[in-house]
Amino acid sequence: MSQELRAVDWTGTGLALLDQTQLPHRTGTVNVQDVDTLVDAIRRLVVRGAPAIGAAGAYGVALALLQGEREGWSKAEVRTAVARIREARPTAVNLMVCVDRVMTRFADGLGAVLEEAAAVQREDVEANRAMGAFGADWLLKKAREDRPLRILTHCNTGALATAGWGTALGVIRELHARGRLEVVYADETRPLLQGSRLTAWELVQEGIPHYVQADGAAAGTVLRGEVDAAIVGADRIAANGDTANKVGTVGVALACAYAGIPFLVAAPTTTVDLATATGDDIHIELRGEDEILEWAGVRTAPAGSRGHNPAFDVTPGRLVTALVTERGVLEVSAGELPGNRLP
Amino acid sequence: MSQELRAVDWTGTGLALLDQTQLPHRTGTVNVQDVDTLVDAIRRLVVRGAPAIGAAGAYGVALALLQGEREGWSKAEVRTAVARIREARPTAVNLMVCVDRVMTRFADGLGAVLEEAAAVQREDVEANRAMGAFGADWLLKKAREDRPLRILTHCNTGALATAGWGTALGVIRELHARGRLEVVYADETRPLLQGSRLTAWELVQEGIPHYVQADGAAAGTVLRGEVDAAIVGADRIAANGDTANKVGTVGVALACAYAGIPFLVAAPTTTVDLATATGDDIHIELRGEDEILEWAGVRTAPAGSRGHNPAFDVTPGRLVTALVTERGVLEVSAGELPGNRLP
Repeated sequence: MSQELRAVDWTGTGLALLDQTQLPHRTGTVNVQDVDTLVDAIRRLVVRGAPAIGAAGAYGVALALLQGEREGWSKAEVRTAVARIREARPTAVNLMVCVDRVMTRFADGLGAVLEEAAAVQREDVEANRAMGAFGADWLLKKAREDRPLRILTHCNTGALATAGWGTALGVIRELHARGRLEVVYADETRPLLQGSRLTAWELVQEGIPHYVQADGAAAGTVLRGEVDAAIVGADRIAANGDTANKVGTVGVALACAYAGIPFLVAAPTTTVDLATATGDDIHIELRGEDEILEWAGVRTAPAGSRGHNPAFDVTPGRLVTALVTERGVLEVSAGELPGNRLP
Repeated sequence: MSQELRAVDWTGTGLALLDQTQLPHRTGTVNVQDVDTLVDAIRRLVVRGAPAIGAAGAYGVALALLQGEREGWSKAEVRTAVARIREARPTAVNLMVCVDRVMTRFADGLGAVLEEAAAVQREDVEANRAMGAFGADWLLKKAREDRPLRILTHCNTGALATAGWGTALGVIRELHARGRLEVVYADETRPLLQGSRLTAWELVQEGIPHYVQADGAAAGTVLRGEVDAAIVGADRIAANGDTANKVGTVGVALACAYAGIPFLVAAPTTTVDLATATGDDIHIELRGEDEILEWAGVRTAPAGSRGHNPAFDVTPGRLVTALVTERGVLEVSAGELPGNRLP
């Protein structure tokens, strides 16, 4: 991805969001000048990916202040608008964390808020670069053979999903930069094809060899020995290591556990939510049925069928081999673990 | 599904195949009068599902004889044509088994061949009815609570995939007929949506409550406790119980094993191929990349992406709780099993 294309950009008077619903066909921008448009953009996945939503939410506080000035809102009304941004999507913790962080500067006015939002964005890129290096180091140290690695990933965790560079895809980019990446298997990530549309698009931009595959193919690809490790992002990590991420993730984790290959989660430490004890306490967003029952506005399922559309799933912490953070690699499942329930 | 609609029907002079590529939008028929058209129909999935392909292959021998008569083929040429039908798709064993069975009557002429093909078809329906009863009995006996069951299935194994009634879906229909089915979770089954287009269509016809979900959602649905058992079909079962079935199946099996719920395979005993020692010996069909990279002829992935498109995967026999056959239920994984490799 060129340096100019950023998922989230502050223009001085509003937010420019790269419209990810249009990729890979068009690289258009949604200009956001008000809170309603921002909430809608987050819900429609114009901007998506936990860290990118976090950055958008951080700037959203500035947006609410500016709109409040224009429209004569009280401080309470601005705070209500910020709360709406904060709750635009329920599962990723980054949105709440980033909004709350910027709100600590709320009393200091717009300049302070913008400064904090810019820090959120800058620090996310720095964190991603650090994750990339830590993750690549860890994988290369664990690799059984001295050859480039074959990595599977699910959903999109690249520059598009973050303030820049990427989390799990950042590790993959780092491996590629070091000449130690053979190929990426990118799960297409139904229903909205973030893998096929976004991850593949980023991989093409970077010249990284890759295959797109159906989500259902992931487990078989792992079990046939075609993959050395899987690495994914996270939307929220509970205190016990249970990890909420894009629906389909736990299936990849199960396959890696069965095959005995590493399953890594790459996420900034802010994704760990100590207020959430276990995955059972994570609110899983149920999205509209039509995402499953239709394709590009054309019905694929018969009339009379219902759709079941959880946007995320929870991977038990003990299936996570290691958590790659900006501070280093935590070997989650190396601790004391409950007995194995597989036959 | 009405009694009139059959996936495979002998018209007296040729085969009428319900065109499953057009479902659920249109219920058209492809009339097959020659071997080329049959091979093409099998490859394009006009007819699909291991037992249905088997029935089509059985009648294919008659078709080759008739075409040979019209076009003055030698016996050897007819045999060559039959061999092409036999190898139209590589993974399901039923096609080979059914063609070979009918070929035992080849020397006796068209009447004998047609008699044998009709027997293949009739016996498949009888086998499916028996499987339905055995499978439903087994599940109800194992059920922890006395309430209707919530069943997950993958791909299509109904009347459309067989000579009639269905294998895994036959068990589900039987549970429904007994008033012991609450709901079906039907995986959409990418890339060709056999679950969303075909299974859901059959379930609508039968008035069976169901949700269509992304394949990636299956593991999470199982792990959240929303499912009591999963049941799928099979294309080939190796001597050690390793089961080739539609890509995505092994992910369902892993989730069921982890959650401790039954994972059943329903298939006629002819699907067990004792000549295949383990799953490693099963040839997995790799289909065209465009099935992954396009949708309805429109590219979804960016230019420059490759597609990885295995049509099947192999579920290790020890993840199969029980095999439901027309002769009874075999508790595959109850035998001696290697140690558990999950952490």
